[in-house]
Amino acid sequence: MIKGFPAVMAKLIKEFSKMPGVGVRSAERLTFHILKSSAEDVKALSRYIGEVKERVQFCEKCNNLSECEICSICSDNKRDPGKLCVVSSPNGVIAMEKANAYNGLYYVLLGELSPLDGVGPRELKIEGLLKRVKDENINEIILSTNFTTEGETTALYIMKLLEPFKIRVTRLARGVPVGASLEYADGATLQRAYEERR
Amino acid sequence: MIKGFPAVMAKLIKEFSKMPGVGVRSAERLTFHILKSSAEDVKALSRYIGEVKERVQFCEKCNNLSECEICSICSDNKRDPGKLCVVSSPNGVIAMEKANAYNGLYYVLLGELSPLDGVGPRELKIEGLLKRVKDENINEIILSTNFTTEGETTALYIMKLLEPFKIRVTRLARGVPVGASLEYADGATLQRAYEERR
Repeated sequence: MIKGFPAVMAKLIKEFSKMPGVGVRSAERLTFHILKSSAEDVKALSRYIGEVKERVQFCEKCNNLSECEICSICSDNKRDPGKLCVVSSPNGVIAMEKANAYNGLYYVLLGELSPLDGVGPRELKIEGLLKRVKDENINEIILSTNFTTEGETTALYIMKLLEPFKIRVTRLARGVPVGASLEYADGATLQRAYEERR
Repeated sequence: MIKGFPAVMAKLIKEFSKMPGVGVRSAERLTFHILKSSAEDVKALSRYIGEVKERVQFCEKCNNLSECEICSICSDNKRDPGKLCVVSSPNGVIAMEKANAYNGLYYVLLGELSPLDGVGPRELKIEGLLKRVKDENINEIILSTNFTTEGETTALYIMKLLEPFKIRVTRLARGVPVGASLEYADGATLQRAYEERR
């Protein structure tokens, strides 16, 4: 029981403080904000929270987040169906879309291989990927898993699986971030940037 | 339009990012958290947000936040009705209650005098305070507005108003915070702590 607050405020503070990066203090501040907000804003917030949970599902074709069975990207016929960008999570799709550089389709693995955490190939959505490579007319697979140990392992694993298909498989380039100065780039990144210079 | 997100997620991200201290990035993280949370947690969060706005009102006696016309503190007959602690906002009540040192009643002014921001005595709930001092059998008023310029001004103003009533009026002590080392206390605090030594 949080002293001094009306019961329903105490309950809301408890719910808010379950959210990532929200401590009790921030939860109190958010609760006061709700009190001060307009009735319409509060209604909208409350409704969208429920709707996100009820409506958002995984696209049956690419496993991306979607409000329909097939997501808006998969059903967009202006996109190049010959390119398939493989990412670990819906966040990857969002990052790529924000960058505004890619016009093909996606496939979301919904995970990355991590043997130490008990995540093997069975935990990822790999079958659907192989099925698409067999059934569809794909020219290029762009492996866009993260550049972490787990992401690199996953990329290597999928690269091996795709070998029999004689398909072009690429990986996003590694290097110094745009706008960064050399002195702040770490050694491993600089080494890669040098090896893969062009 | 936030690219890559299903429409309802984009709407929720927009609502979350209206909250204090929540940028677009945090709003995205909170939205993903909602997606991953259990259906019960999401239902609870959505419901409590609506309920806080619908149910919480100001206590008719002390202006504190309450779910009833009279708040739980004012209607608690185990508290000392002879002591009245005057605070600027419901936050003040909560802070005092957390400290667990006070067993009297409260009066919330719902503001502090700030002539530069156009907040004069009329904007505060001062009449209700004077009425209570007249009508009830109060022995002591503890002025617990903030120790900021606005809070001190408000305390001084109310002290003047209460002079005719020949009632004991006190102010919370100023000094070095418990657990703080002297070297980090600011000069004004140390000066006060020295003057008000006991």
